[in-house]
Amino acid sequence: MNDFVYSCPVKVYFGAGAAQKALSREMGRYGKRVMLAYGGGSIRKNGTYDAVAALLREAGKDIVEFPGIMPNPTYRKVQEGAALARAQKIDFILAVGGGSVIDCCKVISAQAKTDRDIWQMEFEDHEYPAEFVPMGVVVTASGTGAEMNNGAVITHEEKKVKTGVLGAFASFAALDPAHMMSLPARQVVSGGFDTLSHCMETYFGSPRTANVSDEINEAVMRNVIRNLRIVAEDVHNEEARRELMWDSALAENGILKLGKVTDFQAHMIEHQLGAYTDCNHGCGLAVIHPPLYRCLYHGAVERFAHFAEAVWGVDGDGKTREETALAGIEALAAFIRDIGLPTTLAGLGVEPKEEMLRAVADSARIQPGCCRRLTPDEIYGILMACR
Amino acid sequence: MNDFVYSCPVKVYFGAGAAQKALSREMGRYGKRVMLAYGGGSIRKNGTYDAVAALLREAGKDIVEFPGIMPNPTYRKVQEGAALARAQKIDFILAVGGGSVIDCCKVISAQAKTDRDIWQMEFEDHEYPAEFVPMGVVVTASGTGAEMNNGAVITHEEKKVKTGVLGAFASFAALDPAHMMSLPARQVVSGGFDTLSHCMETYFGSPRTANVSDEINEAVMRNVIRNLRIVAEDVHNEEARRELMWDSALAENGILKLGKVTDFQAHMIEHQLGAYTDCNHGCGLAVIHPPLYRCLYHGAVERFAHFAEAVWGVDGDGKTREETALAGIEALAAFIRDIGLPTTLAGLGVEPKEEMLRAVADSARIQPGCCRRLTPDEIYGILMACR
Repeated sequence: MNDFVYSCPVKVYFGAGAAQKALSREMGRYGKRVMLAYGGGSIRKNGTYDAVAALLREAGKDIVEFPGIMPNPTYRKVQEGAALARAQKIDFILAVGGGSVIDCCKVISAQAKTDRDIWQMEFEDHEYPAEFVPMGVVVTASGTGAEMNNGAVITHEEKKVKTGVLGAFASFAALDPAHMMSLPARQVVSGGFDTLSHCMETYFGSPRTANVSDEINEAVMRNVIRNLRIVAEDVHNEEARRELMWDSALAENGILKLGKVTDFQAHMIEHQLGAYTDCNHGCGLAVIHPPLYRCLYHGAVERFAHFAEAVWGVDGDGKTREETALAGIEALAAFIRDIGLPTTLAGLGVEPKEEMLRAVADSARIQPGCCRRLTPDEIYGILMACR
Repeated sequence: MNDFVYSCPVKVYFGAGAAQKALSREMGRYGKRVMLAYGGGSIRKNGTYDAVAALLREAGKDIVEFPGIMPNPTYRKVQEGAALARAQKIDFILAVGGGSVIDCCKVISAQAKTDRDIWQMEFEDHEYPAEFVPMGVVVTASGTGAEMNNGAVITHEEKKVKTGVLGAFASFAALDPAHMMSLPARQVVSGGFDTLSHCMETYFGSPRTANVSDEINEAVMRNVIRNLRIVAEDVHNEEARRELMWDSALAENGILKLGKVTDFQAHMIEHQLGAYTDCNHGCGLAVIHPPLYRCLYHGAVERFAHFAEAVWGVDGDGKTREETALAGIEALAAFIRDIGLPTTLAGLGVEPKEEMLRAVADSARIQPGCCRRLTPDEIYGILMACR
């Protein structure tokens, strides 16, 4: 166990009536003016909007609407929200949505409290916001785990960069599986794969000697895989949906990352693919992971072999460690096919132009802690292998 | 996954220099007058006292000493601490010790803020304290996980009851394995067994259908068992000590309990045995667990069989589920012998008088959520089987 400092200040309400419980217990602490932020309007169709708005009115709040947060939320949208929050003297931001809505609000929460440009502040001056408009979350799509941390993935269109920005922690998060039951099957499965990716990208970081964070991670990965197989067959299976909703939060509440430096190269590559193509995040990760791991495993054969045995049930008897490692990667690839996620860029709806893939490879921001830090040429090779 | 509400407000500093980091970063938020609470004085011998006192003085604090908190801390000691905190207008309580010191301080923190008697308030009026003197923790002995929650185990001598009382959460906890390296081997091992017991008593609560909390729990149990075997052979193994220190916190930070109602009958029986005999907590649990489980498993054969396979590596092939379940309990019993913990009341240093055991059985406070709720006669039978 390496050294760490840990706190997760988000209070979680999980299960039936979570939004009702959370809003009635928590909203009394905050002022009257609430920004209600959401996405493309599906919550207006499935009843979640009406339920949440009624709870806010019951709590005596004035609602200021901020709709239209897009998948892959943009920096422009952050600025629009921050301007609205300032103009309307917003006391509290309630994000009702999935990772895109939540992430956008985390950065609005910070940007509304400072005259400095948050992007310049974080990426050029390397300073981080310290003041935030308080916020809460009602989760309507899971997988990103955005409700549990203060990282936000934002796309800066002019700069053609999609990357992590630090914003606010939510004070509370309501996770009611009922709010997610109208999601399309593809989104449920791709969200679950995003969770699995968070687990794997933590697991293949360093150190890779035995430690309880990784052993817990193996348990969460097995749970995600089992329940993803169930929802791929029957998207209405409520128990599997509940497990996946909590798995998503667990993968990003920090518990799996304690004492670890994470890898997250698949995410960094996918983020840039998303910046260039606006592809679905979980599906993009599904395409990238197997070719990435076929390239990475040489740097960590024993860890990949252990992953194969502990997570995929590969029998290592009579195999070299390298063969076992590769069998694990092929089990992951077969799983992606089994649950119906895309396995190529074409399947992802992306035209695999070499120039664009080169630009993605050259702009991917690879972080420290990697299993083996890939060069832009290697990333380009991986993307070409995804065609 | 059943419904739950979860937050753990304790900020953890884990690893080398944790106390230095925690005190220098956190103490600025609190007033000048700090109660420095500890136990029998071992921290004065091993240098921890001097280091912590110097850090408090550096932070500009006045130190008010509160030494002499005993193992199995008493309600009288709580009242003594609360009176001192009031008289000295204490702004912050720093508990430096293991579970006994931490638990005593949690209740002092509550009692110092009210004129009502906390015992009467919680157990007769069923009301819980809402105001606390803020507190922090420097852990010097682990196993109880007391640093992560707001439950405190206190012995009321006149009432002959040792039980859980709700008190304060620490704002921060410093977990530096270096502060524990001078602990006697027996205390390291019995503390680790307390952690394993917390895991098992959560695992055998309800529900017992597959869920991610229990799968994580299995991972933590395997980690505790592996590392306890290491420290039983070599108490100075630093990596194993580090893992056990974080396992202890994990077992009680709530993550394993999400969506579960816990069992905790072994703890409830041991608490009363402790109230009557002042025995070591972890050792008492070691004596009680196998006979308790031999009596309990009929109510949850499949869960005990799964425990045998997933945690102890029992091969269920060619065995009935009952045989597999029993093989797991015998593996637990063998493990207790292997790591040198007592297996009988005599080994625990307790004279097994029938009248005393009857009183223990009759006064054990069995809670809801049990695997199978034992009657006082059954508990008496279990205690007689411990002779």
